[in-house]
Amino acid sequence: MTELAVGELNPPARTLLGPGPSNVHPRVYRAMMAPVVGHLDPFFVATMDEVVDLLRLVFQTANRVTLPISGTGSAGMEASLVNILEPGDKVVVGVNGFFGERLADAAGRCGAEVFPVTAAWGQPIAPEQVEAVLRQHPETKAVVVVHAETSTGVLQPMEDIARLTKERGALLVVDAVTSLGGIPVATDAWGADVVYSCTQKCLAVPPGLSPMTVSEAALQALRERRGKVPSWYLDLSMLERYWGNKQTARTYHHTAPITMIYALREGLRVAVEEGLEARYRRHARNGRALQAGVQAMGLELHAQEGHRLPVLTTVRIPEGADDLKVRRALLNDDNIEIGGGLGPLAGRIWRLGLMGYASSEENVLLLLAALERVLAGLGVRVYRGQGVAAALEVLNAG
Amino acid sequence: MTELAVGELNPPARTLLGPGPSNVHPRVYRAMMAPVVGHLDPFFVATMDEVVDLLRLVFQTANRVTLPISGTGSAGMEASLVNILEPGDKVVVGVNGFFGERLADAAGRCGAEVFPVTAAWGQPIAPEQVEAVLRQHPETKAVVVVHAETSTGVLQPMEDIARLTKERGALLVVDAVTSLGGIPVATDAWGADVVYSCTQKCLAVPPGLSPMTVSEAALQALRERRGKVPSWYLDLSMLERYWGNKQTARTYHHTAPITMIYALREGLRVAVEEGLEARYRRHARNGRALQAGVQAMGLELHAQEGHRLPVLTTVRIPEGADDLKVRRALLNDDNIEIGGGLGPLAGRIWRLGLMGYASSEENVLLLLAALERVLAGLGVRVYRGQGVAAALEVLNAG
Repeated sequence: MTELAVGELNPPARTLLGPGPSNVHPRVYRAMMAPVVGHLDPFFVATMDEVVDLLRLVFQTANRVTLPISGTGSAGMEASLVNILEPGDKVVVGVNGFFGERLADAAGRCGAEVFPVTAAWGQPIAPEQVEAVLRQHPETKAVVVVHAETSTGVLQPMEDIARLTKERGALLVVDAVTSLGGIPVATDAWGADVVYSCTQKCLAVPPGLSPMTVSEAALQALRERRGKVPSWYLDLSMLERYWGNKQTARTYHHTAPITMIYALREGLRVAVEEGLEARYRRHARNGRALQAGVQAMGLELHAQEGHRLPVLTTVRIPEGADDLKVRRALLNDDNIEIGGGLGPLAGRIWRLGLMGYASSEENVLLLLAALERVLAGLGVRVYRGQGVAAALEVLNAG
Repeated sequence: MTELAVGELNPPARTLLGPGPSNVHPRVYRAMMAPVVGHLDPFFVATMDEVVDLLRLVFQTANRVTLPISGTGSAGMEASLVNILEPGDKVVVGVNGFFGERLADAAGRCGAEVFPVTAAWGQPIAPEQVEAVLRQHPETKAVVVVHAETSTGVLQPMEDIARLTKERGALLVVDAVTSLGGIPVATDAWGADVVYSCTQKCLAVPPGLSPMTVSEAALQALRERRGKVPSWYLDLSMLERYWGNKQTARTYHHTAPITMIYALREGLRVAVEEGLEARYRRHARNGRALQAGVQAMGLELHAQEGHRLPVLTTVRIPEGADDLKVRRALLNDDNIEIGGGLGPLAGRIWRLGLMGYASSEENVLLLLAALERVLAGLGVRVYRGQGVAAALEVLNAG
């Protein structure tokens, strides 16, 4: 048997200002050192209840079935579809970015007939278009929308689409991967039926879980299925018996990822201690400051004005700047990660994240200063000093 | 918004001697404190290659596609089926325990026609029976067998079943959830096509990933599918482009659970440093010692002699002992977790695990002494002192 020389793990300490993962809160790292117990241990079962209670707060919901799926955000996406869609079901999917496209793909794999409602990558979905498709296909089972498109930086207004969906009696599925914990996710106020997210963005927890909440109407659709959920692992009819009951009545399904649950619990505790409203204000203010700074530097924002995510800013790559060279310089010289574009936006935009613990005044200024230096160093014309000054103005205004 | 009073995380320090999770190696805890980097960071991409190389060692395989699925062992189970089975495919599943039953359920959800080959819970699957079903259904696409049945403590001899499966041109899928890292898993020598495991048993890593290896024949079956893999999250045709290529050519699929990958890397490093042969010997010796001790105490083993797992010992609950009371006393008085029975074995057996870091001489003696004290304390007749003495004899013989 060959021996392998794999050395000690020694990752660089990056400042993670891309589309996620974001920097993990120091308290979350500590929580992961807590001793693993059995998944049926009374201590862990009580921990599960605490996590459910905390998740209900950040999802702004009273939904009984509110739990972390044991996989990353993409597993949550899949769980949100496979449980309610059956072959032949009609589903409307808002497609205005990479993650909308992925949802349409995943819905198609459920055998559903997918009606995409599209918008340009950088603009929100128009509620009128959703309405038009729903009128054409009144028996539509679900409408699926991305709340915060990680590929474009667009914040989707939910109220109108939610109302139209409810009026037609369809289920509303919301991708809140990039919003949960950084932007209000008003599950019950919207009347959303399935909302899923991830841990590694605005919750400042490592990737590995997908928080999800499910309405009684969605559970009813699950119960009325003609066939079994095609995925054993993501079958909510079993997961709800594992997570959705109080301690005494839990039915074993799979071994929960204990350490990641500890991490999520701590990330949620930190969020609730900060206060969710204060947390949203922090993300909003830092996002505004970064966007003011980027524009003052002479760069253009990509997402449509009025629909810009505070937690993820998309910037058009200026004339003469080499995408890879800039990102590599930030990474190698400053230990800063930013994101490139996905799909048709590859090479055309950068994605600047200010999420969770990483959404700080220091990081706004650090990023603007580093970006300015790198761009100027590569001969790209930027207004020197203007970015940081404009950001400071926003930050000082509070 | 209500504030919730959720206190500091403070789990008890259990000695985990049940069916898993097992105790996490101290070095693995430390690895999880390493700073999270982006999933596209050059550092992480290099880390992925290291994990793949280490996994190939423990799986004893040269398979190019060898990777951790981003979910627990159950996600690996599902991935191993959904990628190769299509509606109407015939599949033979060995069912001699809880996890065989689960596999049959999951295979049915793929739309496959499932032919179970059964054995009593506590006995291995008979190769002749597999052969008989294969002769009846020569177009069988896959044979699925559990290598180490966590519900019964049975070790399944693989050679004959593997040979028969290969002779018929079917794919061999092996559940190595409880064996990998503690008992030899000879992927290539067997000719197994898909083997999956978990992290929280003999690898001494928290639960959350499912190491998996996939042969070229299985990938060929994947390529020849009539339709898309029903699961987007577990689609190996995309996962292989993310994990199966060398650094430069990786295609983004989902955000890998970075911290868990760090943990797995460290757990694998520890295993390879110990030496796999030495590690198997340690598990074998401690298992023999525990089994000798349990019998010397006057208790009966459940799994058929000659087919007993060293890493998981099943013990018949003696006349007059109250299952729950015994387990609760061990947990509350000694901080020791053991497992109860599943399904038809609930209330009839205990499951005693000696896995990974927890497979130590100290734990053998600790468990025997505690079990003896608890049973005697509850008025169950046991031979005092005999268990520890018999175990020591095995341990001292080396």
